Amino acid sequence: MRQANRAPDALRFIEIIPHAAKYAEGSCLIKFGDTHVLCAASVADKVPFFMRGQGQGWVTAEYGMLPRATNQRTDREAVRGAQTGRTQEIQRLIGRALRACIDQRAMGEMQIKLDCDVLQADGGTRTAAITGGYVALALAFKHLVRTRRLHTIPLVDSVAAVSCGLYKGACLLDLDYNEDSNAQADANFVLTGAGGIVEVQATAERSAFAQEEFLALLDLARKGIAQLSALQKDVIEKE
Amino acid sequence: MRQANRAPDALRFIEIIPHAAKYAEGSCLIKFGDTHVLCAASVADKVPFFMRGQGQGWVTAEYGMLPRATNQRTDREAVRGAQTGRTQEIQRLIGRALRACIDQRAMGEMQIKLDCDVLQADGGTRTAAITGGYVALALAFKHLVRTRRLHTIPLVDSVAAVSCGLYKGACLLDLDYNEDSNAQADANFVLTGAGGIVEVQATAERSAFAQEEFLALLDLARKGIAQLSALQKDVIEKE
Amino acid sequence: MRQANRAPDALRFIEIIPHAAKYAEGSCLIKFGDTHVLCAASVADKVPFFMRGQGQGWVTAEYGMLPRATNQRTDREAVRGAQTGRTQEIQRLIGRALRACIDQRAMGEMQIKLDCDVLQADGGTRTAAITGGYVALALAFKHLVRTRRLHTIPLVDSVAAVSCGLYKGACLLDLDYNEDSNAQADANFVLTGAGGIVEVQATAERSAFAQEEFLALLDLARKGIAQLSALQKDVIEKE
Amino acid sequence: MRQANRAPDALRFIEIIPHAAKYAEGSCLIKFGDTHVLCAASVADKVPFFMRGQGQGWVTAEYGMLPRATNQRTDREAVRGAQTGRTQEIQRLIGRALRACIDQRAMGEMQIKLDCDVLQADGGTRTAAITGGYVALALAFKHLVRTRRLHTIPLVDSVAAVSCGLYKGACLLDLDYNEDSNAQADANFVLTGAGGIVEVQATAERSAFAQEEFLALLDLARKGIAQLSALQKDVIEKE
Amino acid sequence: MRQANRAPDALRFIEIIPHAAKYAEGSCLIKFGDTHVLCAASVADKVPFFMRGQGQGWVTAEYGMLPRATNQRTDREAVRGAQTGRTQEIQRLIGRALRACIDQRAMGEMQIKLDCDVLQADGGTRTAAITGGYVALALAFKHLVRTRRLHTIPLVDSVAAVSCGLYKGACLLDLDYNEDSNAQADANFVLTGAGGIVEVQATAERSAFAQEEFLALLDLARKGIAQLSALQKDVIEKE
Amino acid sequence: MRQANRAPDALRFIEIIPHAAKYAEGSCLIKFGDTHVLCAASVADKVPFFMRGQGQGWVTAEYGMLPRATNQRTDREAVRGAQTGRTQEIQRLIGRALRACIDQRAMGEMQIKLDCDVLQADGGTRTAAITGGYVALALAFKHLVRTRRLHTIPLVDSVAAVSCGLYKGACLLDLDYNEDSNAQADANFVLTGAGGIVEVQATAERSAFAQEEFLALLDLARKGIAQLSALQKDVIEKE
Repeated sequence: MRQANRAPDALRFIEIIPHAAKYAEGSCLIKFGDTHVLCAASVADKVPFFMRGQGQGWVTAEYGMLPRATNQRTDREAVRGAQTGRTQEIQRLIGRALRACIDQRAMGEMQIKLDCDVLQADGGTRTAAITGGYVALALAFKHLVRTRRLHTIPLVDSVAAVSCGLYKGACLLDLDYNEDSNAQADANFVLTGAGGIVEVQATAERSAFAQEEFLALLDLARKGIAQLSALQKDVIEKE
Repeated sequence: MRQANRAPDALRFIEIIPHAAKYAEGSCLIKFGDTHVLCAASVADKVPFFMRGQGQGWVTAEYGMLPRATNQRTDREAVRGAQTGRTQEIQRLIGRALRACIDQRAMGEMQIKLDCDVLQADGGTRTAAITGGYVALALAFKHLVRTRRLHTIPLVDSVAAVSCGLYKGACLLDLDYNEDSNAQADANFVLTGAGGIVEVQATAERSAFAQEEFLALLDLARKGIAQLSALQKDVIEKE
Repeated sequence: MRQANRAPDALRFIEIIPHAAKYAEGSCLIKFGDTHVLCAASVADKVPFFMRGQGQGWVTAEYGMLPRATNQRTDREAVRGAQTGRTQEIQRLIGRALRACIDQRAMGEMQIKLDCDVLQADGGTRTAAITGGYVALALAFKHLVRTRRLHTIPLVDSVAAVSCGLYKGACLLDLDYNEDSNAQADANFVLTGAGGIVEVQATAERSAFAQEEFLALLDLARKGIAQLSALQKDVIEKE
Repeated sequence: MRQANRAPDALRFIEIIPHAAKYAEGSCLIKFGDTHVLCAASVADKVPFFMRGQGQGWVTAEYGMLPRATNQRTDREAVRGAQTGRTQEIQRLIGRALRACIDQRAMGEMQIKLDCDVLQADGGTRTAAITGGYVALALAFKHLVRTRRLHTIPLVDSVAAVSCGLYKGACLLDLDYNEDSNAQADANFVLTGAGGIVEVQATAERSAFAQEEFLALLDLARKGIAQLSALQKDVIEKE
Repeated sequence: MRQANRAPDALRFIEIIPHAAKYAEGSCLIKFGDTHVLCAASVADKVPFFMRGQGQGWVTAEYGMLPRATNQRTDREAVRGAQTGRTQEIQRLIGRALRACIDQRAMGEMQIKLDCDVLQADGGTRTAAITGGYVALALAFKHLVRTRRLHTIPLVDSVAAVSCGLYKGACLLDLDYNEDSNAQADANFVLTGAGGIVEVQATAERSAFAQEEFLALLDLARKGIAQLSALQKDVIEKE
Repeated sequence: MRQANRAPDALRFIEIIPHAAKYAEGSCLIKFGDTHVLCAASVADKVPFFMRGQGQGWVTAEYGMLPRATNQRTDREAVRGAQTGRTQEIQRLIGRALRACIDQRAMGEMQIKLDCDVLQADGGTRTAAITGGYVALALAFKHLVRTRRLHTIPLVDSVAAVSCGLYKGACLLDLDYNEDSNAQADANFVLTGAGGIVEVQATAERSAFAQEEFLALLDLARKGIAQLSALQKDVIEKE
C-alpha cells in the first residue's frame, strides 16, 4: 500500500499558494505532499550574452535545496563551492521546460529567471519545480501586463510535470521519496496543457524495462498532468 | 514616522512558528515583520576535528539567503562558487552567540548545526536568525531528551538578538531594511535571557557617534530582547 | 537530403577500433561519422566511499571534449576550473547506462572508470561514448578474466545508444551536428542488446511534439541500436 | 603578571616606521610589541563598479598573514584557494574604519586600496592594521597633494584601534596572543582622534559579561587610543 | 640497453601526421615513439587584453593530458577544478617557444591558440608538443595565406625541442618515461632550425652535475633537433 | 650604465639578516638590492602522502609576493582564488633546488616547508628566494641539532642562485627589474657551493641566442654564486 492509502494513479495532495515571495514579480509555494518548493520569478532587462540584439526574450532557472530539506542533512552547495551535477541537470531541465511554452519574440529583449528552492523534499522536487515555476512565470507575465511593460502575455501553452515509476511490478503516479528510492524504473514527464510532449526522461535503475511498461507510465503521467494543468489554470486566473 | 506607525522603541510584529522543517530535530520559522528566517537544527555524532576526544559538544551555524528574498535579486552563492564575506561573518556570529548559552560538557561529543535560511529579507536577518536559531536549538535538545539521547537539556541560559540604530537623530529599535540603509549608525546586540552581554557590534556609517548615543542604543536593545526572550520561552515550553 | 545521401533510417559510417589506448585495461576509438570518441577503461581496487564493504563492484564514467574537437573552439574545462553542467549530465548518463548491464556482485569490490574523450565532434558524442564505452568495458573484463583477477565476465547484457530527431517533419536516425542543431525535437535512446529500455531522454526544442512522433523515433532507434549491438559483439569477440 | 611587567592599562611597545614599502604611494610598518604589520596604500584611478560616476572616492582594504607569522604555521590562503571567513571579516572591518575618516567628495573619483600584511602575529593584528593603515593612507594623501593630484588632504579626522579584554577578572589593554586566547571576553574598539566611536566589537568567549565590565573596557580603550592617535600624528607630520 | 636497441644518440621513431583535427585551421598528430600528442591551432581575431591596439599578433598554448594517457590513470584536471602547476609550467613553455619564431607585426592583430593534448604519454610530452605545435602553427599560417587573411607567412625561423639526460653515467637523447624517471639529470632543449637557443631547462634529480656533462647533453640535443627540423620542413612543405 | 654604476659582473648589494621571523625554526630576510625576500622554515613531523613509511625526509617550498611589493600593485592570489602559473613554477623550482643539497635519509621522516615571501620586488626574486631559503633551511637544521631532534646536519652541500642576461649586447650578472624586462635573453642558474649544476633555466625573449652567449652567462653566474655561497657560509656559521 502507498502512504495514506493513495491509489496507484493518484497524485499526492497538491497545493499552490500564489505570491509566496513578497518581492518577486511572480511567485508561488507549491506542495506535492511533503515536497515544498518556493518558486520566484525575477524580471531583468538584460538577456544573456548569446541572445543580445535579437529582440527576443529568455527564460532560465536556478534550483537549490535547503540543507535540511531532506531527512539526512546534505551539504550546502555554497559551502562546497559549486553546484552538484544533479542540481545543474535539474535547473537545465526546468529552464528548457519553461522555454517550451513562451513566445520569445512577444517577450521582447527581457529575461526572467526562475528560482526554485526546495524547502522540504519528499521526492519529485524537479516536477514540482516545473509545475510551480510555470505558475510563477505566468503570474510575472500578468504583473508585467498590468504594469504595462508588456502588451500581451507571451505564453503559447502551459507546462506541468510529474514523475511515474515501476515499483514492485506496479505503475505508480507521483512517487514519494521512499517509492522513488526503491523503484525499478522511474520517469519524469513534462507535458503541455494541450498534451504535447516537452520532455521525457526515463531511467532503469537496475535492469532494463519493456516498451509496454514505458507506455503505461506515459499514460499515467497524462492523467496526472491534466489535473495539474487544471489547478495551475485555476490559480493563475484567480490572481 | 516609522512604517505602520511603529514607536521608536517597538519591535516589529514577531512570530515564531515551531517545527517548520519536518525532518529537522528542532526547527522554527521566525518572522521579524517581513523578515522571515527558517531555522533548522541538525544533530550529528561527529564533532569537528579540533574538538575530537574531549567529551564536549559543539554548536555551529550556516546562513544563507534565497536569491529573491530581497527586493533586487542577488546572485546565488552556489553559482558564484563561494559564500560572500558577509555571509561568513554572519554565520560565525550566529555560531558564537549560540555557543554562549550551552554547556558543552553536558552535551557530550555531539554536534548540532543550525541552518538559518532567509526566505524573505527586510533588515535584521542576523538578529532574527540568532533569536530563531536559539529556539530551534532548544527544541532539538528537548527532542534529544525525549528520545533519551541526552539526560538533561544542556542549556545554561537563553540568547536573543536585536538591531538598533541612529536614524535622523533618533534611537530606533529593530530596524527594517529602509531604516538600516539610511542609519547614521547601527548596532547588533546579542544578550542572554539573564541580561548578560554576549556580543556587541556597533558601526558608524558615515561619521563617528558618541558614547551616550551608544548607551541609549544598548538600553533600547535590552527592552527589545526582554520581549524576545519571553516569546522564546513561551514557544519552547509549549512544545 | 542528408549529408552523403544518407537515408533517414541509416546510421553514419560506424567504426570501432579496439585497443586504441595502449595503457588502459580495455579501450577503443569509436567513430560515428566525423564524431570520434576515445574510450578507455581503468580498473581500480577501491570502490567509492558509499559502496565500501558491500562486496560489490561499481562502474562510473568521465566525459571530456578536446577544445578544438568542434568547429568553433570551446574553452578548456580545466582552465575554466570546473566541468560544465552539460559535461556532468553526460557523464552521469554514461555511468548509469553502463551500470545497467553489469552484475555488481560478480565484479566483487572493484571499480572501473570509463574515460570518454571526444577527439572530434559532429553530433551524437554521448551516444558514441556509451556505445564505445561498453566495448572498452567488455574488453577490460576480458582482460581481467585472462589475467585471472575475475573468474567470469560480469556482464548480463550489452548496451548501446543512438540519437534520433524530428527534422523538417521527418524522423531521422543518428543526427549529425547540423541536423541536431536544427531539429524540432531530439531524443537519445539507450537500449540493451536484448531490446530493453535503459534510458530515454527526449526534448522538444521549440514546440512540443506528439506521442506518435515519439514512438516513431523509438522505432528508428531500435533499428539503429540492433546494428550497433551486432558490431559491438563482433569487435569484442575478435579480441 | 603580564609579559615584561606591563601594567593592565599599558600598551605594548608601539613603533611606526613610515615608508616601509618602497613602491607604495604611502606605507608604514607598524609594531604592537611582537605583532608586525606592513601597511601599503595603492592609488588607482578607477573606483569600484557601484561607485562609478558619482564623483566620489573609495577606500578599501585587504588583509593577509604570512604562513609563518604565527607560532604554528597556518596554511597559505592562495594555496587553499580562498580567503578564510576570518580574513574577510577583518579586511571588511579595516575598510569600514578607514572610510569613517575620509571626505569621499574631496577625494574625487579615485580609489585607495590598503594592503595590510601581517609579517609577525602576537595578537591584535586587526587593531594594528587599522592604526597603521590610517598612517599609510594619510601618507598617500600627502603624496597626492605634493604631486598635485589632490588640492587638499581629504581627511576629516584620524582613526586608530586597540583591543581590550577581561582576563582572570581584570580589565587589560592591548592583549597579546596568550592573553587573547585565554580572555573571558575581548573587544576591539575603533575610535577617531576626536574620540568618536567608529566601531565596537565585543565578544564573550565562554559566558556573558556585564554592562559595567563592558564600560570599563571602553574606558581603557579610550586611553590607549589617545596615545596611538598622538603617535600617528607625530609620524605623519614629520614626513 | 635502451628499448628496441636504440642507440644513445638516436631519436625514437618520429611521425608527424598533418591535418589530424578536421576543424582546426592547422593541426597534426605527432608521435615520439609511444608518446602521441594532438596539436591543433585555432585562429581568433581577438588578442589578449594586454596586447590590444598594438597591431601585433600573439601565439599562446594550452596543454592537457587524457586521464589514461599514462600507465597509471591520473585525475582529470577539469574534475580537480584546476590545472596543476606542472601543466601550467608546460603550456607557458610551449607558448614562449612558439613565440620565438614568429614575426608579431607581420601577423597583425590576431591570436593563435595551440591546443596540445597528450593522447598517450611515454616521456617527452612537452618536447613533442613544441615540435608538433610548430607544425600545426605553420599549417595554420599556410591556411591563412591561402584564404587571403594574411599576405605572407609570419615565421622567421622554425622551432623544435627534445629532451636529453644522464642515465647510469651515459648521455641519452630523447628519453622515454622509464629513462626519464631514473635519470640523474634531465634537460629539455628548444632550438631553432638555424641552431639558435630558445630555451634550456636542465635539472639535477638527486645530485648536481658537471658543466661538461651539461655540454654533452646540449650536443646531443643539437643532433636530434636537426633531424626533427628536417622532418617538420618536409611535412609542412608537402601540404 | 647600470644603476649605481654597477659593473656588468657585479652583484647588487647583498644582505642576509638571520632570524627575521621570530617563530620559525630557521629564517632570514635576504636582500638582493631592492629585492627583499623573507624566508622561513617550518618543521613538521608528517611527510607528504607519497613519502610515508620510507624513513626519508622532504623539503618543499611555497612562494608568495605581497600585492604592493611591485611598482604596480598586483592582485592578491588569495583573492583571485588560486596561485598563478608563475608562482607555482617558482615554488617548484625552489623546492627542487633545496632538495638537491639534503640527505633525505639522514633527515628521517620529517618535512621542512620553506615559505619565501617577497616583501619588495626589483627582479631576481626566485634567485634571492633560493639563496635565502638555503640559509633558513640550514639554520633550521642547526636548531634541530641543538634541540636534539637530529644528530647531525643532513646537508651534503650548499645551494645558491643568481640570474644573468643579455642586455644591449652585454652579459650582465644579477639583473634588476628594469634590466630583466628589457633583456634579449635571461637565465637563472642554481649551483652548489662545490660548483655543481643543480638547475639551468635560460629563455630567449625575442630571438634565439648563441651557444657562446649562453656559456658567457654561465661563467658570470659561477662568479656571482661563489660570492653568495661565501656569504651564506658566513651567516650560518655565526649563528
